[in-house]
Amino acid sequence: MTIGLDMMGGDFAPLEAVKGTFEYLQEENSSAFLILIGDEAGLNPLVAEYKIPKDKIKIVHADEVIDMHEHPTKALKEKQRSSIAIGFHLLASGKIDAFISAGNTGAMLVGALFSIKALEGVLRPTISTIIPKENGGTGLLLDVGLNADCKPEQLNQFAVMGSVFAQTILGIENPRVGLLNVGEEEGKGNILCQATFPMLKENKHINFIGNVEGRDVFIDKADVMVCEGFTGNIILKLAESLYDITQRKKIQHDYFDRFNFENYGGTPVLGVNKPVIIGHGISQARSFKNMIALAQKMIEKNVMQRMKDELV
Amino acid sequence: MTIGLDMMGGDFAPLEAVKGTFEYLQEENSSAFLILIGDEAGLNPLVAEYKIPKDKIKIVHADEVIDMHEHPTKALKEKQRSSIAIGFHLLASGKIDAFISAGNTGAMLVGALFSIKALEGVLRPTISTIIPKENGGTGLLLDVGLNADCKPEQLNQFAVMGSVFAQTILGIENPRVGLLNVGEEEGKGNILCQATFPMLKENKHINFIGNVEGRDVFIDKADVMVCEGFTGNIILKLAESLYDITQRKKIQHDYFDRFNFENYGGTPVLGVNKPVIIGHGISQARSFKNMIALAQKMIEKNVMQRMKDELV
Repeated sequence: MTIGLDMMGGDFAPLEAVKGTFEYLQEENSSAFLILIGDEAGLNPLVAEYKIPKDKIKIVHADEVIDMHEHPTKALKEKQRSSIAIGFHLLASGKIDAFISAGNTGAMLVGALFSIKALEGVLRPTISTIIPKENGGTGLLLDVGLNADCKPEQLNQFAVMGSVFAQTILGIENPRVGLLNVGEEEGKGNILCQATFPMLKENKHINFIGNVEGRDVFIDKADVMVCEGFTGNIILKLAESLYDITQRKKIQHDYFDRFNFENYGGTPVLGVNKPVIIGHGISQARSFKNMIALAQKMIEKNVMQRMKDELV
Repeated sequence: MTIGLDMMGGDFAPLEAVKGTFEYLQEENSSAFLILIGDEAGLNPLVAEYKIPKDKIKIVHADEVIDMHEHPTKALKEKQRSSIAIGFHLLASGKIDAFISAGNTGAMLVGALFSIKALEGVLRPTISTIIPKENGGTGLLLDVGLNADCKPEQLNQFAVMGSVFAQTILGIENPRVGLLNVGEEEGKGNILCQATFPMLKENKHINFIGNVEGRDVFIDKADVMVCEGFTGNIILKLAESLYDITQRKKIQHDYFDRFNFENYGGTPVLGVNKPVIIGHGISQARSFKNMIALAQKMIEKNVMQRMKDELV
């Protein structure tokens, strides 16, 4: 398998991307060949310095970089020789099997939505976040911002995609799916939830356990929590801010350490036909290593094909 | 002024309600005459035991109690002699100026919506929650669950009602109003936010500062944060659960202590023509005292009339 990595994305590029590449290749079970996309003149000395084995990587030169604050669609169109545009070109043409970047999030989303194809039958791809549960476990919340307005059919698909991800990647055997809502009983909630509940209930591809509320997000009730991207995005950013607040207030506890979203490497786009992973701008070596490892696992476990099968 | 208090509502009724009454009447600036609604035979000895001055209160007997898990509409209709039904009857007929209960939340909401009138021009009343800010300040989030689906016009009214409440009750001079959204710039967000933003921007009765995101909820950015009741309810319950989690994990810090929503007494229903305050089921003496004091303040500051004036 071949994984493409944007070396120019993120606040600490390209150094931390190079270090992450090194760390990944040190891992015993690393099996991917890496295409490092970025400024060749800048990368060559770093690759040499970190003694990255030449038979495991290939540098593909990119003249340009899409900055963090550029308009995504415009930048992708105008900067065809940027590392992100080249990455999606390689992905679309089959030269790489997955693409990773900690660069401009909007450009990554636009690229994922328009450069490669959505899985057959998928109404809209989605992005998710890991939720640290009080008992030490891990949950998945989706959508967290790609789809601010949703139809019930979309939430139903998020439930399936989230279940496959939880099963294959998080290792949760029969993931419990909850509909994020404002009440426990069927019939509660806004119009969207009222229409979504019966669909989830009848969906044989998931283990639906009913509604979950705001108070259940951080506790061990549902493994996969489904909502539209508006609520999901607000929860994600609120959870991220909690970590920042505990840091600033010097509240030290293992539980809040798990709210450090750097731990999780990056956010995969689900529902497209190849793994695309979007990293945080502040990604460091460990995040890059985790993202490459996640891409490898997604390819190995054939996550995309399994989603397609379950969505039928 | 006369304030009605349901003595039978909440997990620790009537004892904690009696203790709260005593504590309120001990306060130097307490000025309300209290109507205590509940089982007379049970209340008389408690009122004597706590030496509650007889010229400050009157017991109004109620035969029945609406339990916490009863269906609100059904219970209110069938239990006309319950403390909540009697309370709303007294409020509607002008015998009391405000009504407080820590009983069945649904019955309190139904009572507030249908027993007394909405303020002229108010599309739908709303409920809010206090948000403890990182810097020690206090914000207001609304709606937190009364209106799961909203129109832009409703959010615009919540902004006005929230501003008046923040000004008169929280003592914030020129409260900054933020629209809870998934992006910073105008034009971002779901369809509801896109339609609401221009209305808030043009509203001369508020100090609109633009969009706020999930990461801004707990920091000092906006004083009044406006959203539909779906997102607001999820944030409220999530915040409440954070307090529980920190308690269970023995994470001791002043900041998280402020997430103990018992501190705040109760939630007033905004947009109706008289103060109705709904307490938490676990309300203790301090909560009852705070709720009575809040009702007094709302009457003194003429909060409802000021909302009406600003909504024109």
